[in-house]
Amino acid sequence: MPHGTSPSPPKIVLASASPRRRALLSDLGLSFAVEPARFDESQVTDGDPVARVKALADGKALDVAGRHPDALVIGADTIVVIDGTILGKPEDEEDARRMLRLLSGRTHRVYTGVSLRHLASGRHALEVEATDVTFGPLTDEQIARYVATGEPMDKAGAYGIQGYGATLVRGIHGCYFNVVGLPLYRLARMLALFGVEVF
Amino acid sequence: MPHGTSPSPPKIVLASASPRRRALLSDLGLSFAVEPARFDESQVTDGDPVARVKALADGKALDVAGRHPDALVIGADTIVVIDGTILGKPEDEEDARRMLRLLSGRTHRVYTGVSLRHLASGRHALEVEATDVTFGPLTDEQIARYVATGEPMDKAGAYGIQGYGATLVRGIHGCYFNVVGLPLYRLARMLALFGVEVF
Repeated sequence: MPHGTSPSPPKIVLASASPRRRALLSDLGLSFAVEPARFDESQVTDGDPVARVKALADGKALDVAGRHPDALVIGADTIVVIDGTILGKPEDEEDARRMLRLLSGRTHRVYTGVSLRHLASGRHALEVEATDVTFGPLTDEQIARYVATGEPMDKAGAYGIQGYGATLVRGIHGCYFNVVGLPLYRLARMLALFGVEVF
Repeated sequence: MPHGTSPSPPKIVLASASPRRRALLSDLGLSFAVEPARFDESQVTDGDPVARVKALADGKALDVAGRHPDALVIGADTIVVIDGTILGKPEDEEDARRMLRLLSGRTHRVYTGVSLRHLASGRHALEVEATDVTFGPLTDEQIARYVATGEPMDKAGAYGIQGYGATLVRGIHGCYFNVVGLPLYRLARMLALFGVEVF
């Protein structure tokens, strides 16, 4: 490589169907393509939260990287953990109400695994960020009204910290964007390892 | 009032020019009008952060309420405090760089005062939320590049926690939306006192 120049950063592909992850990455001013992974999540059976989000994030990234070996592929997975139990997306409205009753008035932990894969160079990075989230107390009526908004149905733990859900969360400890679905502080440092600067 | 009915909630007016506050209130699904206060902030000389954001929030709310006595008016003010010093909006780019050097690698506190005024009934509420924000370490080069994006110039403390600024903040302790400009958990409870339910 000539002195004083650096390789151009690779094209970025986000291996996620989440509109929230897409919006977060857009807000950073990065240009990227989106290709949701075709990855069978049932093959990941880890009960440990950190191991689980790492396996899921990396499984998604590797699947998409296989079709885009020259790209830098970002995979991510977010889960909610309370009382040692992992909460994924609710199966139906009754399941959403059950999850919200569990979260009411208490603190739970949100984990997001992030995997960066660049097959052409063989380089990769795999990290996990954890954020504690404290809910205010919820009445059954508030839970019913929140579920009726439809907001809980496609989200781990049956809530979104953006939108209506913002009024349920008394406070957090850690990275806010991790709860939305991508830990931006950590992600920026991971991207820099691959020559991608956010601004 | 007939049994089983309740008075219809008052019309809401947001007494703020901040596009971020407007977006937050819209995200809650509330309908409201916007009328920035004509309020001389220099008349508030409190050096104590809590007294200062209370006085500024209430000054803005009262100014607009005087023209809309039947409306529920929301006033708010946000400041950044580090080492006992209040940081407002930067005066110029050099001032922004100075503030960011002060925040680099350390924890500061963000205060937002919220005032609700309904002159027709004489009812009002005035509260303050505080959130701790921890920056990662910033190099002079990162600071220069961040200032060059223009993002710091209209924001207390010379940063926005949304957008590029998200990659500067390692984590927070407390309400995230308070840092953006409106503490939504607290605001929802204040609005409920006036018969306004968020969802």
